[in-house]
Amino acid sequence: MSRTEAIDRYLQEHLEAYLQETIRLCAQPSVSATGEGVLECAQLVEQILQQHGFETWKIEGYGNPVVVGRAAGKSERTLLFYNHYDVQPPEPLELWDSPPFAPQIREGKLFARGAKDDKGEFMARLAAVEAVRAAHGGELPCGVLFVVEGNEEVGSPGIARFVQDHLDLLKCDGAIWEEGGIDFEERPGTSLGRRGILALELEVETLSRDAHSGNAHILPSAAWRMVRVLAALKDENERILIPGFYDHVRPVSEQDLELLRNLPDLEAYLRQSFGVRGFVNNLSGFELRKAVFNPTCNIQGITTGYQGPGTKTVIPARAKAKLDFRLVPDQDPTDILQKLRAHLDAEGFTDVQITHADYMFPARSDPQHPLVELAARTAQEVYQKPYQRIPLTGGSSPVYAFAGPLNIPVIDAGVGYGITNRTHAPNENIRIQDFHNAARHIARILDGFAGIF
Amino acid sequence: MSRTEAIDRYLQEHLEAYLQETIRLCAQPSVSATGEGVLECAQLVEQILQQHGFETWKIEGYGNPVVVGRAAGKSERTLLFYNHYDVQPPEPLELWDSPPFAPQIREGKLFARGAKDDKGEFMARLAAVEAVRAAHGGELPCGVLFVVEGNEEVGSPGIARFVQDHLDLLKCDGAIWEEGGIDFEERPGTSLGRRGILALELEVETLSRDAHSGNAHILPSAAWRMVRVLAALKDENERILIPGFYDHVRPVSEQDLELLRNLPDLEAYLRQSFGVRGFVNNLSGFELRKAVFNPTCNIQGITTGYQGPGTKTVIPARAKAKLDFRLVPDQDPTDILQKLRAHLDAEGFTDVQITHADYMFPARSDPQHPLVELAARTAQEVYQKPYQRIPLTGGSSPVYAFAGPLNIPVIDAGVGYGITNRTHAPNENIRIQDFHNAARHIARILDGFAGIF
Repeated sequence: MSRTEAIDRYLQEHLEAYLQETIRLCAQPSVSATGEGVLECAQLVEQILQQHGFETWKIEGYGNPVVVGRAAGKSERTLLFYNHYDVQPPEPLELWDSPPFAPQIREGKLFARGAKDDKGEFMARLAAVEAVRAAHGGELPCGVLFVVEGNEEVGSPGIARFVQDHLDLLKCDGAIWEEGGIDFEERPGTSLGRRGILALELEVETLSRDAHSGNAHILPSAAWRMVRVLAALKDENERILIPGFYDHVRPVSEQDLELLRNLPDLEAYLRQSFGVRGFVNNLSGFELRKAVFNPTCNIQGITTGYQGPGTKTVIPARAKAKLDFRLVPDQDPTDILQKLRAHLDAEGFTDVQITHADYMFPARSDPQHPLVELAARTAQEVYQKPYQRIPLTGGSSPVYAFAGPLNIPVIDAGVGYGITNRTHAPNENIRIQDFHNAARHIARILDGFAGIF
Repeated sequence: MSRTEAIDRYLQEHLEAYLQETIRLCAQPSVSATGEGVLECAQLVEQILQQHGFETWKIEGYGNPVVVGRAAGKSERTLLFYNHYDVQPPEPLELWDSPPFAPQIREGKLFARGAKDDKGEFMARLAAVEAVRAAHGGELPCGVLFVVEGNEEVGSPGIARFVQDHLDLLKCDGAIWEEGGIDFEERPGTSLGRRGILALELEVETLSRDAHSGNAHILPSAAWRMVRVLAALKDENERILIPGFYDHVRPVSEQDLELLRNLPDLEAYLRQSFGVRGFVNNLSGFELRKAVFNPTCNIQGITTGYQGPGTKTVIPARAKAKLDFRLVPDQDPTDILQKLRAHLDAEGFTDVQITHADYMFPARSDPQHPLVELAARTAQEVYQKPYQRIPLTGGSSPVYAFAGPLNIPVIDAGVGYGITNRTHAPNENIRIQDFHNAARHIARILDGFAGIF
């Protein structure tokens, strides 16, 4: 029996046990937004890691505790798994078919808050570790590190500092990010880059209180001022008007274009899914795919004046706008924040406050790194489909906090299935078959990891 | 004893009786926003008019009943009083020192919801009518008409049609509007014009649901589209960009400028009252006063996207903005509405909906009309200060619904006092002395009215 066969047999035989362990973990609430059950869950995660042969640390000082597990292997090479034990709030409860923290298996799926995001992912990885350890006669072929944090669903505010403070403990040669799996057409794949983000609020006050709109010829309106501010940030062709904004944008490489060409076409899917008549700048085809390399300035929301039913003849005294800028390699969100302030000042908007600024840096991994090749080869084995290499995804994540300081490639592999996971929503679930396949894929990566260097 | 002395003596002797009648009327709730007590109040007003010798009509079909009272006089000339019996909701109740519908006199003031707006005004006029009738030996020197409506606090939606439908019944030679009195420095005066208004909502939808902002490079944002729409309505110098918007703006006359020059300077007051650093377009001095002749485009409020605490990385699918345009003579709100639609279409905003459009026309009265001269002469007698003639006020009212179809001048005289009435707010009140003076002033106008033609 080959080692791969041994791994698969182990996983087949122990699948039920790992599902039961996942159920136990999902039954423990851990809502970081409210604090419910978070400390108990950190404790439970540490216990589970210990039960699976990991040396553990529960590290305080970065928000909710960060649980670290380390297991040595035959090789010095170490693979890091980033996961999180916190979950999104389960509300609205009335839309769940079974209670969010009473996990239930039905129709080949496990339903629970956190089943997918991120407790199922974590447990599939532990299953993979055990399978590989068994197939290697009780000793792992490479070192394994788990970083399981408790603030991911509230934006991981402490994780970058945590990594900086623990570079020795976290020394490793590659990482698998919190999630992965297959898309809505069952294709496996990985993101090889995430955009950064600079989120902030703009606030302006023109009057000490709302005034009657019969005075609109003389009293300055915060609503109009905010419109002017926003119009000064981006032109009608989506070009961001902050001087120097594009200075550090890395040109799109021929390799990136090639990766984009190999990706499936999402245009029809997006058009249908969001009822879109026309895309931004009337983009279509390959240009639409390439647009992910454009940084963006998004308005999350605007609040000003009267928003109730009917009419209220007021001049708004205050206006707020929440914005997020998605940044591409090698833009620096702290640099962009300074340039934004300078731009507002130069345009005469010195009275406009920037508050609540928060950010993540962009990150890229080398598409040709041997870890990517290994993940692709093993994904083909498990899923019988090519592993999609997405050069850059539109969202943001704390990948940068690990990739940069630890100088490692970061890839995705996991239990996800693009159609039905209902992540962050009622009836969150995973398919048992995806849990099984994720463990098989990750075990193969662990099995081959030491050999790629 | 002169007729004026007889009038003043009558009012002095009967002041207490009219205050008691005002208290009785204010004790009857009549909240048009909720319907509370409205029909009972219409009944009560009709009864009061009958008790004071008026023939009455309670006219249905225009919202809450319109109560009309008519009393003939020696002359065919007729003066119309426009008033309303409905009041604003009394909430928040906890901020009242005495219950809103349990009128209370203390410290020389009458406190009640409606004491000022508009029941005290109505009763001061009835007192004036009685005083004049008594001084003229039991017969009025001119005809008197009361129009007391019940929808003023919800925008008088039926009043223009009501007037159009009852031109014969309402035939008259001049009108005193619902309110009047003295300003914060105890100066009497009148508005001689009101701006019109076109209020509406703009709505736009770019997606069938909010999307993750990681897609902002491809999915169109309703928030950004609304910013573009608004920016296309007005330039940074307050010039409204709708083609033809200014076509029917009547030039400011030399007479208007002269009236403006005679008005007190409100700049310091406004600056302090609203904490204003700079006025619109950095106006100051005489230019600031003159700006009331500029029509405006005001944003009442904007609603789009996420407005709660913290950050939410969404692209808003929908955006709404409530606007009001204040229009000057001779702009026509129905014409402006058509031009706005045409402008949006021409600018490519065919997807932007205009909803909830509602309007009033602007109105002007001739500053030299003998009724204005009469009111000024008698105001000087009563208040010992010149009667301010304000050529145009910034707000809007249904004055136009009477002034145009009946072809009459419309002036203000009443019980108001700019500092303490707390109209629409808790502890609404009038000063007894202002009630008394309003009756004296209005009685003098009634006394002289037939003689000015």
